[in-house]
Amino acid sequence: MGIQIDRIARDLDIINSFTATPGRGITRFSFSEPYMQARAYVSEELKKVGAAVSTTAGGNLCGRLEGSIRGYPPVMTGSHLDSVLQGGRYDGAAGVVAGLEVARVMAEEKTPHRHPIDVVVFAEEEGSRFGSVMIGSRAWIGRLTSDDLHRVKDSDGISYAAAMENAGLHPGDESLLKPGMVKAMIELHIEQSLVLESKGLSIGVVEGINGIKQFLVTLTGVSNHAGATPMGLRHDALQGAVRAIAAVEEIAMREMGGQTVATVGMLTCEPGQANVIPGRVQFTVDVRDLDSERIDQAAQRILSVIQTICRARGLAFDIKPRSDTPPVRLSTGLVRLIEETAQQKQIHTLRMASGALHDSSILPEVTEVGMIFVPSKAGRSHCPEEETDLVDIGTGAELLLGAVAKLAS
Amino acid sequence: MGIQIDRIARDLDIINSFTATPGRGITRFSFSEPYMQARAYVSEELKKVGAAVSTTAGGNLCGRLEGSIRGYPPVMTGSHLDSVLQGGRYDGAAGVVAGLEVARVMAEEKTPHRHPIDVVVFAEEEGSRFGSVMIGSRAWIGRLTSDDLHRVKDSDGISYAAAMENAGLHPGDESLLKPGMVKAMIELHIEQSLVLESKGLSIGVVEGINGIKQFLVTLTGVSNHAGATPMGLRHDALQGAVRAIAAVEEIAMREMGGQTVATVGMLTCEPGQANVIPGRVQFTVDVRDLDSERIDQAAQRILSVIQTICRARGLAFDIKPRSDTPPVRLSTGLVRLIEETAQQKQIHTLRMASGALHDSSILPEVTEVGMIFVPSKAGRSHCPEEETDLVDIGTGAELLLGAVAKLAS
Repeated sequence: MGIQIDRIARDLDIINSFTATPGRGITRFSFSEPYMQARAYVSEELKKVGAAVSTTAGGNLCGRLEGSIRGYPPVMTGSHLDSVLQGGRYDGAAGVVAGLEVARVMAEEKTPHRHPIDVVVFAEEEGSRFGSVMIGSRAWIGRLTSDDLHRVKDSDGISYAAAMENAGLHPGDESLLKPGMVKAMIELHIEQSLVLESKGLSIGVVEGINGIKQFLVTLTGVSNHAGATPMGLRHDALQGAVRAIAAVEEIAMREMGGQTVATVGMLTCEPGQANVIPGRVQFTVDVRDLDSERIDQAAQRILSVIQTICRARGLAFDIKPRSDTPPVRLSTGLVRLIEETAQQKQIHTLRMASGALHDSSILPEVTEVGMIFVPSKAGRSHCPEEETDLVDIGTGAELLLGAVAKLAS
Repeated sequence: MGIQIDRIARDLDIINSFTATPGRGITRFSFSEPYMQARAYVSEELKKVGAAVSTTAGGNLCGRLEGSIRGYPPVMTGSHLDSVLQGGRYDGAAGVVAGLEVARVMAEEKTPHRHPIDVVVFAEEEGSRFGSVMIGSRAWIGRLTSDDLHRVKDSDGISYAAAMENAGLHPGDESLLKPGMVKAMIELHIEQSLVLESKGLSIGVVEGINGIKQFLVTLTGVSNHAGATPMGLRHDALQGAVRAIAAVEEIAMREMGGQTVATVGMLTCEPGQANVIPGRVQFTVDVRDLDSERIDQAAQRILSVIQTICRARGLAFDIKPRSDTPPVRLSTGLVRLIEETAQQKQIHTLRMASGALHDSSILPEVTEVGMIFVPSKAGRSHCPEEETDLVDIGTGAELLLGAVAKLAS
């Protein structure tokens, strides 16, 4: 029988019936009521196919189909069910239901596997509730301690540990994932971009996850009367900032050779009145690439342009690092395995980098990791308009099934 | 004896002891407690020199020294005592104390004057409390009706009329200022800019008040993941906006011949997260000049650049007018009279435009208006750092005395 798209469609419909903002996208913050309802549905479905379900350190759900040889390390698949505020139906959920369907098919068809199959729902991938991304996976591999989970709080002051407790989650086994304990992990995820759609492809094979360097730039000039201050006597912080922001785009597009992306997503302008020259502007710069040297090079160029602009305009500047996440290379062995499986199934693929972070950027510390991308319509993501064709999710699940079955055989 | 700087200093000290934000600048919103205390001080000082004090339509204070010929129209001087939030010690107050000192000197020295001298404190010049500027003068000349004063409300929902009432202000005479009822009006005000200081001058003679055209620009692109969207597939609203904002400065500085000022003072960027491409940016454009054709020309050029940028970047745009105040030419006769008086007193002056609005932009509808500017240190205004040398205020008051005495003789 193989992968059944109608079952995947039904899983997504049920999971996405659980949202805190019905009619205005999917809002499913970690350990909230809709989150726990969606998580319980997946848990029950996994139990139906004979999986043993447990909560891991960090609050992740793990459903295990035991393998035929006791003690062999599991092959893992899965993704997350938590969402951004008013996000979409597929970010995270697509990978969870694909993993669930893989487990169903392997159980139904009694596919022989010596290794266990673990279908995992990672907690707090988005960071929407606790302000820090991928807490579930980081806690599981020990990069966050139990103390950390008591320290990190949501906007109501509830700690991650207390939120788990309140939701009735008590890890049966607090042991951490260590190198060697998992044979391999493959995550299916929506692309969240336009590349696959623009090339008419259903499948991307992810080679790595872009590193990110973010900084916060503050330019300080002199706030003054917009009417009474001649143009030549101004120190307008916004006029300096707009030239720096234009340079951010130009450096990424013209100087870096096409892989680097650089974004100014946040900008505030003070005092922010139509008739007052801005005295202080703050903005973020976000630079990403699969090559950490190119990230550093682009960041250096941007900082040097900011310096030049501020010197010429008599502005003060301050640049604070916000985050610095190195690029992650996924397993070349798994890239090849996924590509070979695709060839056998006559599925065309494209090797690509992931611009977004995923739990798969954390897990390479403990195991071989691969990722399968399926297209996002018009590249939309993190919004109610997020959409992926069910046929593409079916193709991705088919490929995931083939790869997992080979690894677990 | 003439103008006495120590009396002006004392007036300013007492008036500025009344602020809602002691230690953090002058906050004296119209009809608030500190405002009424400052107003009462000026009223008492005017009474001391024999002025008859009344409240006019619109809540302005008017202190009159009667002239020797009954029925001659008064010569008016004055300014305002209301301030912005955490503003400075001189904006408005300088002109009020200069007018008060002129009345004192003319009374003490028994300067003969056939015309009455009116020293006026205009209400709500700044618009800080009721969101609309120059309400006192506009109501007095009938451009705002009594209905309007009941309709315009502060942030607590209290109407202008009710706020006057609550402060115990009941106009003794609701009659309006009509053309012919005032012989001339001269206001002394701080420059609120750097021009006089940069030329080492104490006095500016204002030829006119810049017109203002403001609009609100909205650029709409596509909000998307900052990591996953290649540079070439973006419709980043902020990247379009920054090029438009840079053009606002360039058009004013390079294309308009040096008189036009253009400012982007307010900018918001949505969704405003470091890792999301901005989908929507709003900003204001404020264009000012003494020549209304140049204002229109600059505005047209800015709009056409916005159009070009949006077409090239696949952004939608919307441009809404916010305000359109034509330039005001002050009386050329008064400009000459003030300049002649200055020459006699060996005071160097500079003809200039006012970039900011004043009650003097309203009064030309009913009388001849002149303005005297005194320098602002470092051009700072609308902030606690606002400062003007007392010697300069003294020079300005000296000139004001000479001009008023001539006009009223």
